[in-house]
Amino acid sequence: MAIVVTGAAGLIGVNLVDRLLATGKKIVGLDNLCRGSRENLAKFSANPDFTFEQVDLDDIAAYREVLGRVHAESPVDEVWHLAANSDIPAGVEDPAVDLRDTFMTTYNTLVLMKELGIENLAFASSSAVYGDLGSRALDEDAGPLLPISNYGAMKLASEAAISAASESFLQRVFIFRFPNVVGVPATHGVVLDFVRKLKNTPSQLDVLGNGTQQKSYLHVEELVDGMLFISEHASDRLNYFNIGTDDAGITVSHIAENVVARVSPDASICFGTTDRGWVGDVPKFRYSIAKLEQLGWRPQLDSADAMAKAIDEIAQQEGCT
Amino acid sequence: MAIVVTGAAGLIGVNLVDRLLATGKKIVGLDNLCRGSRENLAKFSANPDFTFEQVDLDDIAAYREVLGRVHAESPVDEVWHLAANSDIPAGVEDPAVDLRDTFMTTYNTLVLMKELGIENLAFASSSAVYGDLGSRALDEDAGPLLPISNYGAMKLASEAAISAASESFLQRVFIFRFPNVVGVPATHGVVLDFVRKLKNTPSQLDVLGNGTQQKSYLHVEELVDGMLFISEHASDRLNYFNIGTDDAGITVSHIAENVVARVSPDASICFGTTDRGWVGDVPKFRYSIAKLEQLGWRPQLDSADAMAKAIDEIAQQEGCT
Repeated sequence: MAIVVTGAAGLIGVNLVDRLLATGKKIVGLDNLCRGSRENLAKFSANPDFTFEQVDLDDIAAYREVLGRVHAESPVDEVWHLAANSDIPAGVEDPAVDLRDTFMTTYNTLVLMKELGIENLAFASSSAVYGDLGSRALDEDAGPLLPISNYGAMKLASEAAISAASESFLQRVFIFRFPNVVGVPATHGVVLDFVRKLKNTPSQLDVLGNGTQQKSYLHVEELVDGMLFISEHASDRLNYFNIGTDDAGITVSHIAENVVARVSPDASICFGTTDRGWVGDVPKFRYSIAKLEQLGWRPQLDSADAMAKAIDEIAQQEGCT
Repeated sequence: MAIVVTGAAGLIGVNLVDRLLATGKKIVGLDNLCRGSRENLAKFSANPDFTFEQVDLDDIAAYREVLGRVHAESPVDEVWHLAANSDIPAGVEDPAVDLRDTFMTTYNTLVLMKELGIENLAFASSSAVYGDLGSRALDEDAGPLLPISNYGAMKLASEAAISAASESFLQRVFIFRFPNVVGVPATHGVVLDFVRKLKNTPSQLDVLGNGTQQKSYLHVEELVDGMLFISEHASDRLNYFNIGTDDAGITVSHIAENVVARVSPDASICFGTTDRGWVGDVPKFRYSIAKLEQLGWRPQLDSADAMAKAIDEIAQQEGCT
């Protein structure tokens, strides 16, 4: 039996494949290599249990050909669907990005799983499905769900389609909702952005927004650990969990200061004047992880710890000494 | 200024156009006439304020041509987007139906409204977005939103896309979530189904399910009244309201008995054995309309009254004396 991981060449995909291979399972990674990269997967190239297929999941004919062939060679038991647009501002600018890369990849995955009789799905959703519910702690049953970005909208649309499919043909579903994830290999995000800005202009860091935006961050290694824990311990037909830290989060200025300290200690930091970086950015929220704690897992690193670890890893990735 | 009504030839569309024309507004009705019919619109044909365009809203090129032309002739101020698949079991069988007719029609509407600078949208959503939350009273902020039909999933996906658009370019949005709506012109639904079955076989009515399925029903004239009331009185940027009756609903056997009494009093009624008619059918739910009562509106007819009125209207529509 094989496990398919979509978006395998991205930040979460690479870390998930690493963990799944360690258990001796046969893994097939799919990715269009649009945001993820082939070099992120280089470390698996010598492993006979890992296969990679480059394919655009929004092209259902191509996806059908690849998944059908994979399934014929070694029956696929479960799909971990991580592939999505990860550039939220791009999707605010042009809704077609998240329609295609975030929603249609999910829809096509469901169509093909039904055709091939694959009944187990794990899905990487997002805290963005909650929209802007103010400062109240977001538990999994919070409502209303009124996303403020197309990314959040198409993650919620994906959850909805999966939910309907679990009533129809899926036997076991895991929906993971997580906030900002940091770590390596970093392909996008605020830390990578800051590090690269400082490498270009070591004397000054320009920050979008006034720096007071406050969010919680989860380290990718903990995220993957939490996802695997849930998949091993939650036993409903449709399981949906927040995975995150339950601290109040850290501010953009905290991140900026720590990146500067690590990469270019003498740089000055220049802030904007608004409390949001871009339309659709949720300014502040707090996560409840009581449901996951009840199941028996909680992260070891709080937002500040996760960020400190990630800043060091990303600085190294970008060649900073 | 003109108002566009999509799905104008359907049950709700015809009743809404009727009310909007009565206020002297210029109305442009769009419909693909797939489920709605041209004869439903015949009564407006002499009205110079009404224009009809047959167009498939999932064909964005055709939709763009029509809406662009309409907008150039008489600037469109608001869109009432009612067009959707209304055959829920069809969408459970084949998810492509609700992807295309329920979600992509909404997505395309948003794309074109943005292109043309139309900033006001009213959207016919559904109680199906709530999925199966058991017998608890469903208020607008209830969660989780885990629909059990593709119809419900694609209505929720539509809400999500609209919500993100209201953060970006829409200035005023109304989302109406309503349960089963009855009245004329009936194009589908349990009453029409029963009446037609009895016209074919006057001696016996076969009922899907065991008849204990219990739902609340709203008469279409009240629904339209409630939608107009909300659009006149709610003043948030994004307004979302349940519209319905808050009684416990009526059972399928109640409906069957009343249709038989009206259409074919000597017929026997034969029930199935399950508590659901089809996958994705929510067996029982109860609606909270406290938010709408707070705004100042509540329906005059309860579920039984609405059904009695509709049964008589639909029997007449189908030529029963």
